[in-house]
Amino acid sequence: MRPFMDEHFLLSNDTAKMLYHEAAAKMPIIDYHCHLSPREIAQNIKFNNITHLMLGGDHYKWRAMLSWGVDEDLIRGDGDDKQKFIAFADALSHAIGNPLYHWTHLELQRVFGVNTPLNKNTAAEIFDYTSELLQKDEYRAQGLIDKFNVDYLCTTDDPIDDLAFHQAIAAEGKLRARVLPTFRPDKAINIDRAGFADYIHQLSRAAGMEIKSTADVLTALERRVEYFHACGCRISDHALDTVPYGEPSFKQADKAFHAAMEGEEMKQKHIDSYRTVLMAGLGGMYAQRGWAQQYHMNAMRNNNTAMFRRYGPDVGFDSITDAAIAHNLSRLMDLQDAQGQLPKTILYSLNPAANHVIGTMLGNFQQSGVKGKIQMGSAWWFLDQKDGMEEQMRTLANLGVLGAFVGMLTDSRSFISYPRHEYFRRILCNLIGTWVENGEYPYDEEALKQLVMDISYNNAKNYFGI
Amino acid sequence: MRPFMDEHFLLSNDTAKMLYHEAAAKMPIIDYHCHLSPREIAQNIKFNNITHLMLGGDHYKWRAMLSWGVDEDLIRGDGDDKQKFIAFADALSHAIGNPLYHWTHLELQRVFGVNTPLNKNTAAEIFDYTSELLQKDEYRAQGLIDKFNVDYLCTTDDPIDDLAFHQAIAAEGKLRARVLPTFRPDKAINIDRAGFADYIHQLSRAAGMEIKSTADVLTALERRVEYFHACGCRISDHALDTVPYGEPSFKQADKAFHAAMEGEEMKQKHIDSYRTVLMAGLGGMYAQRGWAQQYHMNAMRNNNTAMFRRYGPDVGFDSITDAAIAHNLSRLMDLQDAQGQLPKTILYSLNPAANHVIGTMLGNFQQSGVKGKIQMGSAWWFLDQKDGMEEQMRTLANLGVLGAFVGMLTDSRSFISYPRHEYFRRILCNLIGTWVENGEYPYDEEALKQLVMDISYNNAKNYFGI
Amino acid sequence: MRPFMDEHFLLSNDTAKMLYHEAAAKMPIIDYHCHLSPREIAQNIKFNNITHLMLGGDHYKWRAMLSWGVDEDLIRGDGDDKQKFIAFADALSHAIGNPLYHWTHLELQRVFGVNTPLNKNTAAEIFDYTSELLQKDEYRAQGLIDKFNVDYLCTTDDPIDDLAFHQAIAAEGKLRARVLPTFRPDKAINIDRAGFADYIHQLSRAAGMEIKSTADVLTALERRVEYFHACGCRISDHALDTVPYGEPSFKQADKAFHAAMEGEEMKQKHIDSYRTVLMAGLGGMYAQRGWAQQYHMNAMRNNNTAMFRRYGPDVGFDSITDAAIAHNLSRLMDLQDAQGQLPKTILYSLNPAANHVIGTMLGNFQQSGVKGKIQMGSAWWFLDQKDGMEEQMRTLANLGVLGAFVGMLTDSRSFISYPRHEYFRRILCNLIGTWVENGEYPYDEEALKQLVMDISYNNAKNYFGI
Repeated sequence: MRPFMDEHFLLSNDTAKMLYHEAAAKMPIIDYHCHLSPREIAQNIKFNNITHLMLGGDHYKWRAMLSWGVDEDLIRGDGDDKQKFIAFADALSHAIGNPLYHWTHLELQRVFGVNTPLNKNTAAEIFDYTSELLQKDEYRAQGLIDKFNVDYLCTTDDPIDDLAFHQAIAAEGKLRARVLPTFRPDKAINIDRAGFADYIHQLSRAAGMEIKSTADVLTALERRVEYFHACGCRISDHALDTVPYGEPSFKQADKAFHAAMEGEEMKQKHIDSYRTVLMAGLGGMYAQRGWAQQYHMNAMRNNNTAMFRRYGPDVGFDSITDAAIAHNLSRLMDLQDAQGQLPKTILYSLNPAANHVIGTMLGNFQQSGVKGKIQMGSAWWFLDQKDGMEEQMRTLANLGVLGAFVGMLTDSRSFISYPRHEYFRRILCNLIGTWVENGEYPYDEEALKQLVMDISYNNAKNYFGI
Repeated sequence: MRPFMDEHFLLSNDTAKMLYHEAAAKMPIIDYHCHLSPREIAQNIKFNNITHLMLGGDHYKWRAMLSWGVDEDLIRGDGDDKQKFIAFADALSHAIGNPLYHWTHLELQRVFGVNTPLNKNTAAEIFDYTSELLQKDEYRAQGLIDKFNVDYLCTTDDPIDDLAFHQAIAAEGKLRARVLPTFRPDKAINIDRAGFADYIHQLSRAAGMEIKSTADVLTALERRVEYFHACGCRISDHALDTVPYGEPSFKQADKAFHAAMEGEEMKQKHIDSYRTVLMAGLGGMYAQRGWAQQYHMNAMRNNNTAMFRRYGPDVGFDSITDAAIAHNLSRLMDLQDAQGQLPKTILYSLNPAANHVIGTMLGNFQQSGVKGKIQMGSAWWFLDQKDGMEEQMRTLANLGVLGAFVGMLTDSRSFISYPRHEYFRRILCNLIGTWVENGEYPYDEEALKQLVMDISYNNAKNYFGI
Repeated sequence: MRPFMDEHFLLSNDTAKMLYHEAAAKMPIIDYHCHLSPREIAQNIKFNNITHLMLGGDHYKWRAMLSWGVDEDLIRGDGDDKQKFIAFADALSHAIGNPLYHWTHLELQRVFGVNTPLNKNTAAEIFDYTSELLQKDEYRAQGLIDKFNVDYLCTTDDPIDDLAFHQAIAAEGKLRARVLPTFRPDKAINIDRAGFADYIHQLSRAAGMEIKSTADVLTALERRVEYFHACGCRISDHALDTVPYGEPSFKQADKAFHAAMEGEEMKQKHIDSYRTVLMAGLGGMYAQRGWAQQYHMNAMRNNNTAMFRRYGPDVGFDSITDAAIAHNLSRLMDLQDAQGQLPKTILYSLNPAANHVIGTMLGNFQQSGVKGKIQMGSAWWFLDQKDGMEEQMRTLANLGVLGAFVGMLTDSRSFISYPRHEYFRRILCNLIGTWVENGEYPYDEEALKQLVMDISYNNAKNYFGI
């Protein structure tokens, strides 16, 4: 029996161990997509105790607690912090096989040096011990980021954001990691969601221009793209819960736009045209500037109306949809490509049943001169686990060129989620090491190390041009 | 090489062996969903030979035989029983990797003590040997159930059933297992199937009231729910081949209802409303009484018209559909939840491509105070195999809290299918043991045994409140 | 660590090794579906160098090269052959985990005796060495086929083809393998594609009759079926990217037919009727003659418009679709079955998410007297890899009778793709050997060898009646 989560955790053979310890583990981190708050980084916030740090904004953990029947007071409510942590520990210890189990123990090990398995019996002592550590400066937001050897960190930002916190962080110059914004214009694209007209007014102000048509929306967005670019942004992000495709006509799009601004009903085909025109136009802006666009597909959000009314979005009531994406995604990317407007693109599916659709879609639009222009995004959200990451990498390897993969990101709202990069690298090294040990790929130590270092760090650096 | 199906069958490491033999194997069985005939139990029927016992109602086995080209006379026809068994043995020995291979040998081992591999050369002798044993009383229906340490056994019953056989079994008091009914109102919900109007007349008689509207249907069903509850029923079951969702309006539903009763054509949206209104209303009845509802999704039935005309339903011509379920299922459960009418729910998908949709749907509707209120049902029907069960448990573990899982059921029409619980427990113990031996979860013998005993038995007992 | 791709490649235990070396490896090859050019076989073409041989028509390899950012000149363009091979070697060495890696090295080992791992450093020497060998007669098209112990080889042919090259090959009598045509009437069925009317005129000439209706199309096709049958054809093939089902009415079908011939717009329901009527009618012709029909489903083709304009179809810009197939496929097969017109059928899905839909569809239409009348096709195209083949076989084994499986085909345009049969057989033997070594199936050497020889060769020979 192997020891619980020791230095060789997840590394099942010698080649895997060599690759991880001698190559992967030494590389810094590029966390090219996360949901950390630039304000909290700039303000270098302090965490009173481990509950604030670990459970503060982490809907993954809330969800596990509710699945274990924990009282709402101790989840999203105003219960006692120590009781919350104990309740979490109890749920966690029954969540065998859940990535939270590994994430949490990696967090305890790497952040606090705590190697005790967490359960309801050990939770109180761990709470006290870590709360003491959290009073130190090195456990504030910036210290935590620095602890993990992070080179770049890309937040997720609305086009109307003034990026003041990003500038403040850079101006202060204390954080080793560079904090860059990411352009996420969902609100300008989701014409059928509540609040669209209001948002367009805000965009109008941010861009300093009137917005009277779909073309104006694009012009306003391009001004913001320019601004983001000047602030170091090189990546956009789109939450394409479903993938739109409609006639790419400004005339049709405007029918939806005018109706939305007047609060009138829209036809689905006009909505589709509007979204398509925007996606194509934005693609052109990104392509022109060498940006990469990210498409996050197949989420189904806010399924629990009562909880949405109580807490709003992103608190643990989202799930996976099974809507078909292949046809629309092919048409949307081809439209961009045909107009010379297809930027580097990362495709993420939340539904692993779509892995092969994605994995083969890449090949339709690859391009000479760019290694892996179209990427299959690392296993995302619910799939960000050992099985999910292994399946994503096997699928990518089977259908494309694994050596061009830009690797891992946290997609996290937590300041201590960086061990997920370690988790990913261990799984990567184990996968490759196992192939080699099985005689499926030659043992060439230097080439293998290079491969692992590239996927861990170099590919992302080259791909994003940061 | 490990011996063929010995005591350590499927247990690949020491922790797995310890967990199975010292914990899982000792627990009794709660078979909370099956299709055994209450009449056959009450009458304590005798089986003339192993063909009657093993092939009598088992469409899994018929299907394998037809796939091997066996003559229809020897499958569903009136061929000689011994020849039937030999033909089955021949097909089976070529079905390497099929769960039937393991189920059948577990049945031979556990029921008859026969350890010889079954094939066309050994079949005749096994037929003779077992036929002799089957003349003994202990091999009648009740003896077979008792042999497997069954505590509870839940049959599947129509709302109009008088449950006389359940009462007779209880009154006789000879069977150790308690035989409880399950409420399955499919015929009242499937308004678009032939025979609906007739069924409503039968329901009217059973409930002792006139039925003139959708509301009346619900009232009549509630009377039957009351009756079932008094007879010990705590579980309902729904065959949601596709998941309905329509406007939850009695007015719209009545349009479908009246048309159906008059034999007129119905609009799809009215059908959807009717089904939605019924599902929501029934959910409320279940929730109020602490019942659990089961949703069995993604079956596509009676695909072979010629065989359906010859033999009727449930004889081996069903398969898996790929219709999308995520959106409608989310809306249907949210409707129930928003009205305070979402009972404990078990979601089963016959299509493993929907595993992640189901596994994440759970989390949308979990509830404080109940451990695992929404369950991902154990691998079902075609998926009830080593790969399918392992995948179901890995998915559940990755996306939820495995420790809250209510575990296995047979869903079977056969009196000797209980070894499937053993099969499940071995796979469960092997999965957990492997994680522990790999250093992915700490070795805490007592906690691990408790986990395994809970999933094998205790969770189901607590969950169903029986 | 096991040596790189040695004699025991992919064979992880003793039973697997025994089964492969003593049974599977000894069987000849029946390549019952490929895209080799009958003309090139008849002309016994010579390959100037390994680039012509290996990269000439192989869009799998082109795709990998573009994914690695290789210049178009060195892929589909007119770059230098040696540079092309070096560029391919570079891409390949980064495609760890891709089946191309194994296919290519098996090709180098088996065709040329080259055991060096291919990468950009070794490519030039391998290019020179193999180019010299390719000047010999035994490395011409026919020599390559003979090298692999091929018994039968089925090309893919249009109904209007005169099959002159097949006749020439047979007449010459030098090739050991028998080269048989396959009937692929896609152009007559895809009424909504450009060029349909022209094609019907060509079919009219080939069949020697006027074509004025859907019924005439079927009559003309039957004349060609007759002709193909006389030339040894026993198999048809259909590229059902999506599966049609509409009212099987000639009257409705004719509405689509007449519109298509006049270049007018068609209603979708008439298109569906036309395609359904044709599929059903053709099924009858096949069934009557004992042919097998192949349905290749779930491809999405020509996604990149720019590349399609430049190079046409089948050059590496196809991918996998997620369109639902279960309902239509069930209805189409039931229609054929109900009319006594369901021939032996092989169902291939390009989307592994449909594996269980296919695997259970088989059982709906199996037939007494035929072992495995309905087959789940071997892992196809993008899925033709270790993971994909293993998953296809596990699914088939779990849901049907693996012992009736007709096994592997290359589906290839390359003269050196036969090692994919070896690849398949190794994976098959490893799967079965692993089950046996785990105690999941008894060790019966003769029975196991027979099973493996049947799936490798005998089942296909019996099934196709060639």
